[in-house]
Amino acid sequence: LPRMNRVFNFGAGPAMLPVEILEEAQAELLNWQGMGLSILELGHRTEAFIALLDDTEQLLRSLLAIPAHYEVLFLGGSARIQFGMIPLNFLHPGETAGYLVTGLWSALAFEEAKRLMSAYCIASGEADKFQSVPPVQDWVIQDNATYLYFTPNETVHGVRTEFPAVFQGLSCIADMTSCLLTEPITITDYQLIFAGAQKNIANAGLTLVIVNKDWLARIDNTQLPLMLDYRTHVKHRSLYATPPTFNCYLAHKMFQWVQRQGGIASMYHNNVLKAGKLYDYLDASSFYDASVEKSARSLVNVCFRTRDATQEARFLQEAQQNGLFALAGHRAAGGLRASLYNAMPMQGVDALIDFMQNFAHSKDK
Amino acid sequence: LPRMNRVFNFGAGPAMLPVEILEEAQAELLNWQGMGLSILELGHRTEAFIALLDDTEQLLRSLLAIPAHYEVLFLGGSARIQFGMIPLNFLHPGETAGYLVTGLWSALAFEEAKRLMSAYCIASGEADKFQSVPPVQDWVIQDNATYLYFTPNETVHGVRTEFPAVFQGLSCIADMTSCLLTEPITITDYQLIFAGAQKNIANAGLTLVIVNKDWLARIDNTQLPLMLDYRTHVKHRSLYATPPTFNCYLAHKMFQWVQRQGGIASMYHNNVLKAGKLYDYLDASSFYDASVEKSARSLVNVCFRTRDATQEARFLQEAQQNGLFALAGHRAAGGLRASLYNAMPMQGVDALIDFMQNFAHSKDK
Repeated sequence: LPRMNRVFNFGAGPAMLPVEILEEAQAELLNWQGMGLSILELGHRTEAFIALLDDTEQLLRSLLAIPAHYEVLFLGGSARIQFGMIPLNFLHPGETAGYLVTGLWSALAFEEAKRLMSAYCIASGEADKFQSVPPVQDWVIQDNATYLYFTPNETVHGVRTEFPAVFQGLSCIADMTSCLLTEPITITDYQLIFAGAQKNIANAGLTLVIVNKDWLARIDNTQLPLMLDYRTHVKHRSLYATPPTFNCYLAHKMFQWVQRQGGIASMYHNNVLKAGKLYDYLDASSFYDASVEKSARSLVNVCFRTRDATQEARFLQEAQQNGLFALAGHRAAGGLRASLYNAMPMQGVDALIDFMQNFAHSKDK
Repeated sequence: LPRMNRVFNFGAGPAMLPVEILEEAQAELLNWQGMGLSILELGHRTEAFIALLDDTEQLLRSLLAIPAHYEVLFLGGSARIQFGMIPLNFLHPGETAGYLVTGLWSALAFEEAKRLMSAYCIASGEADKFQSVPPVQDWVIQDNATYLYFTPNETVHGVRTEFPAVFQGLSCIADMTSCLLTEPITITDYQLIFAGAQKNIANAGLTLVIVNKDWLARIDNTQLPLMLDYRTHVKHRSLYATPPTFNCYLAHKMFQWVQRQGGIASMYHNNVLKAGKLYDYLDASSFYDASVEKSARSLVNVCFRTRDATQEARFLQEAQQNGLFALAGHRAAGGLRASLYNAMPMQGVDALIDFMQNFAHSKDK
């Protein structure tokens, strides 16, 4: 077991945080930087908070090599509002956007865009129950699409889509809620990237947006609520409304932590090893089954089943008794799921595989 | 000075929290309820979180005597999005709403409603620089207004508007961001109440909405983003998107704390004493000046000035050296402001008055 009788938390989000970050936050919770108050109590327009937010942005810019012509926004609330904001900001009447549907989240983003403005489906993995990414030769890329949208990592079915070569040079938007900071990306491949914080960035309640400044010139929807207009947040440097200050503070610590670990390349290296070890075990097992096609397997959400489905309830119960928390699959997919975000150490994966071996062995008897 | 070398934080929000709540949060930050994980890491669909959220709602219902036909929503992000949501949800094309403009926040809400749908001004305190509430005999209450909107406490100029008798029986909506839980209210006077959390409820990033279920039947705008449709959040019991889990946890502690203090009546009693003591001192002073008309003075944001405006920079500097933090007025109003929300103890007010006396005395020499 890890420090302080803490479990390994395999939940898909809100997810595990590095214990040293929690210890830092704990130590300074009543008195931050000797100011005599908690970061929870600090006004967002104080010099101290603005300096913290600026530094948080600079850390992220450094980690991801974000060019100067991209804005970084720290928005309050869930990433899900982006499903509506993106079409309402960037599509003009008569225009359409292409959505690559590889799981629940891209499906919901597509539905919202279609309902509010206009969108078409580039390809959908639904017929294959989202166990693979549709082959690229079957994709429909309309010449007139204003943008192409995809979700590089789908948490529910554990499906990964690498940046598609056919998107190169086109205007691309990506929901990186579950994969930002977990693998290298090229920012200039995208006009806009967004990510909810509760997987790899901070606690729930913060959404990061990275957007090409030039792309903002497209916006001319005068019926947008000001809070839904990206330009509002750019103009006010994420301080138009009170931002989620504590989440920004945790993001600052998380970005420093990623930097100390060696940056994104190091995170990616660890994530490949962690997921690889678990998939290797699953592929060699006759008791468990990882059904997602190998080329489409997520690095951070490993979905699997017991071949005998009646074992899963007992599996979850015994896993929890062994300090392995939240291994149930998403209610839309069922089965089991181990989320292995940046903060999950290899010891967590090892403990899980040990448990899985023992569980399989005891049930095979 | 209070415990742990903590200052008295007079900031208007994010604002001071009771130190015992911070101590509780600190003690359990790495291991909540013996679960072996932090509340920051707990999934929002776990039994434990859902039980916490249910209990948080029940505490609020009990504190405010919220009837069963009102819904309580815990939404992520800033309250400011309500400025757009309210007209977009509740106004049909051709309808209008009346806005009572008594300060910056109601003025901004009015502008957004007018821009997105249609709204008219019941009365405005702007000509008086928001130093009073316009006399009720000058108000325009249109018979056909769908709702009447007001901001019972305006933080920037420190202006309070009691529930207007002329609103009785009409559909009323109130922004209670800075006053919810600080004084008794009658929920059934309102169709909808909202409040950002960062004054009296929790840390920044949570917005509470209390809404009459019957009123939701008005909503028929099919062009609303799902995240902006109140019905979405009602249907999914605030779990449509990932809610700001840590803020909900702090709100739970805060509601328990208010209950332990004797509930809203006790909070109101203390707030009247705290603000009364400071206003009495200001009114007796020849050095300071509280300019808001007596009948309109806020209980929680006491705005004042030094009669010699050149003293204010020095005042702020020396106050901070004496552990009295964030006494600057809002940048739109200037001057000085002491925010005395529920968590500010009488000792804070006493320390402020002591300092003000000494400061005035030293400058009068």
